[in-house]
Amino acid sequence: MSSAGIDPAGIQADLEALAAITDPERPWSRCAFTPRHLEGRAWLRAAMAGAGLAARIDPAGNLIGRRPGRVPGRCLAVGSHSDTVPGGGRFDGIAGIVAGLAIARTLAERGLVLDHDFELIDCLAEEVSCFGVSCIGSRAAAGALPEAWLERRAGELTLRAGIQAAGGAPERLGEARRADLDAFLELHIEQGPVLEAAGLELGVVTAIAGITRIELLVEGRADHAGTTPMDARADALVAAADLVLRVRALAAARAAAGPGHFAATVGEFSIAPNAANVVPASARLLVDARAEHRDAMEGFLGQLAAACAELAGRHRLAITAPRVLSDNPPTPADAALVAALEAAAARAGLRHRRLASGAGHDMAWFARVAPAAMVFVPCRGGRSHSPEEWADAGAIARGADVLLDTILRLDRRPPEA
Amino acid sequence: MSSAGIDPAGIQADLEALAAITDPERPWSRCAFTPRHLEGRAWLRAAMAGAGLAARIDPAGNLIGRRPGRVPGRCLAVGSHSDTVPGGGRFDGIAGIVAGLAIARTLAERGLVLDHDFELIDCLAEEVSCFGVSCIGSRAAAGALPEAWLERRAGELTLRAGIQAAGGAPERLGEARRADLDAFLELHIEQGPVLEAAGLELGVVTAIAGITRIELLVEGRADHAGTTPMDARADALVAAADLVLRVRALAAARAAAGPGHFAATVGEFSIAPNAANVVPASARLLVDARAEHRDAMEGFLGQLAAACAELAGRHRLAITAPRVLSDNPPTPADAALVAALEAAAARAGLRHRRLASGAGHDMAWFARVAPAAMVFVPCRGGRSHSPEEWADAGAIARGADVLLDTILRLDRRPPEA
Repeated sequence: MSSAGIDPAGIQADLEALAAITDPERPWSRCAFTPRHLEGRAWLRAAMAGAGLAARIDPAGNLIGRRPGRVPGRCLAVGSHSDTVPGGGRFDGIAGIVAGLAIARTLAERGLVLDHDFELIDCLAEEVSCFGVSCIGSRAAAGALPEAWLERRAGELTLRAGIQAAGGAPERLGEARRADLDAFLELHIEQGPVLEAAGLELGVVTAIAGITRIELLVEGRADHAGTTPMDARADALVAAADLVLRVRALAAARAAAGPGHFAATVGEFSIAPNAANVVPASARLLVDARAEHRDAMEGFLGQLAAACAELAGRHRLAITAPRVLSDNPPTPADAALVAALEAAAARAGLRHRRLASGAGHDMAWFARVAPAAMVFVPCRGGRSHSPEEWADAGAIARGADVLLDTILRLDRRPPEA
Repeated sequence: MSSAGIDPAGIQADLEALAAITDPERPWSRCAFTPRHLEGRAWLRAAMAGAGLAARIDPAGNLIGRRPGRVPGRCLAVGSHSDTVPGGGRFDGIAGIVAGLAIARTLAERGLVLDHDFELIDCLAEEVSCFGVSCIGSRAAAGALPEAWLERRAGELTLRAGIQAAGGAPERLGEARRADLDAFLELHIEQGPVLEAAGLELGVVTAIAGITRIELLVEGRADHAGTTPMDARADALVAAADLVLRVRALAAARAAAGPGHFAATVGEFSIAPNAANVVPASARLLVDARAEHRDAMEGFLGQLAAACAELAGRHRLAITAPRVLSDNPPTPADAALVAALEAAAARAGLRHRRLASGAGHDMAWFARVAPAAMVFVPCRGGRSHSPEEWADAGAIARGADVLLDTILRLDRRPPEA
């Protein structure tokens, strides 16, 4: 039993129950817009009822369980998602859902009636689904799901029909926008190794890092690999390799110098013609860069452009100027909520630190319409989006304690002017 | 008109006639084991007849035109190939065939009767064909075509049936082996930029470089590209990029230091999972290394193994020891023939140099059963295996002059003991 009274055994039982609802040939899969996901949702509706929450589905297909408060129209919400990546884990998203259930059960067991409504929100399709986009439900809750996306197709299925199948009403999508939240709090596994490596029990998230995707194209010249002297080549792979090392060095320097989280990765890489006996003619690199602070990203983009020009000269070939394919700015967590969560972690005696989230989360969308913040619990080896993903029920319970303590204090705080 | 009397106009006409025999939608293609190749062969049989050569097809499918000599059973041969890569050029192989035709015409026009038979050999399928292997005809002429290869398949077709369709008799494959050649001479475009860049008219080939293909596998760890700190990664692409630069540096140093030709290329390169938001878990590199001298290749392989171990340590991941997928040693040209060709080039007043061939050629196979050597003529920009491939008819005529002069001198030389 954790200090604020959240029971790890209940969390463990809920984790196991949801894990059992998986495509059997590919554990653990409960992808959005599949019957398996709806099966998980059916379990969750029942679990919400058991925790004293009245369930509804909003027009965007978010499943919401509510414990009414004394004062109508104001709400404190906990949320995450119950969908998974294919062959993904048992904790990504689910940890936040079972934490919310545990909080609701604790409120019910203690007979606590809040001034605010308390809600647990299972956001629809946080993971990149068959429609190629993420955070369907939380985008809609922020009023930021483009209407045109409803016509996106995955085979025969449109997103519109997928939301309908989940119980939503896409013709009333605008009504999914939330204007009534005094706080949105999310608990999530860290999906990285920082907390575990430092022996910490909780992370208080300062920001969701901005994500910028940048395409780099190297244009050299195909030549016979046997007959072309080493000093007469324009080898696109050699120049691209130099670029990969430069991206790494620039990102490592920024991450070490701070302030805040910075990472950059060349995740996609290909060459042409990719034939054993031909000097590579061209290469394509896709850089995924994440920054807690926007100025860090802008500085990186400038350095990257300079590196492309420099390396094109050194290797005597062409490198196109970096092309930004997508560019999402960082989302800071609400400063007052960060302070409140830290204070609760301190009261609970947890070893904790602030850190940024390098991954995107539903919280980032709710932050557009409400004070929003989140906590991370450690996960084994930082593994995520794989069957090996693991977080201890005790760790999740400790995080849920902090959310519950924070909710109880927020509930009695006078509304902001 | 070149000094020894080979007429560039005849060479130009033959080049144009063969270029006209191409798959019209993909110039210039006359791939072995296609009807287009047989169409080219039909033209060549007629051209051989016009040049006073009696044509036959040997059991391996080589098309051979012969001008009989006074002394039966000894032969001086010129050869190359009339097949092309798909979308390949008008000169690779063909330059040597039209040079041989021009030599035969000159012998006929001057009424020269040699002691030796003179033969022009159009080797079957020098290029990598649909059967995935090269130098079918010249391997057989060397007695080195494995019988088992006859059962190789390309769709419905076996190599056995392909050789039969070309007029060969694969059941008598052993009879294709040549024991009667006092010399095999090949003229070929350089397929590289060295001669053109140096303003030279002819290259006398010292050796066909050995070709060794080496696979390198880098095994890192997949991690979330957003959440994994830069210093907690085992990024296979970063280590592989370092390897690419090391291969380049090692090869450039060997090429610059000499002696002899050396080149190494990472031509095939791939990573997994190759996803934008995942730190690359693994990488595969295929190194194509070419060396005129075997000790250079062995030295390179040792350095490569050391580099793999060093970089695995530096990047804290696994790199498998280099795996040699194929390993063909260098083939020196016959020293006396090299000297004879150089002397002929000097007599003709041609600007020439010795150089190694980084590419494989039919000559390398004939060298197993006969004194063999070859000359290179310059080609524009070193381009080859592409539609832009170009060599001047005059350059080919000058090379043919050198071959003719050499043949005339060899013919009167007393046979070796």
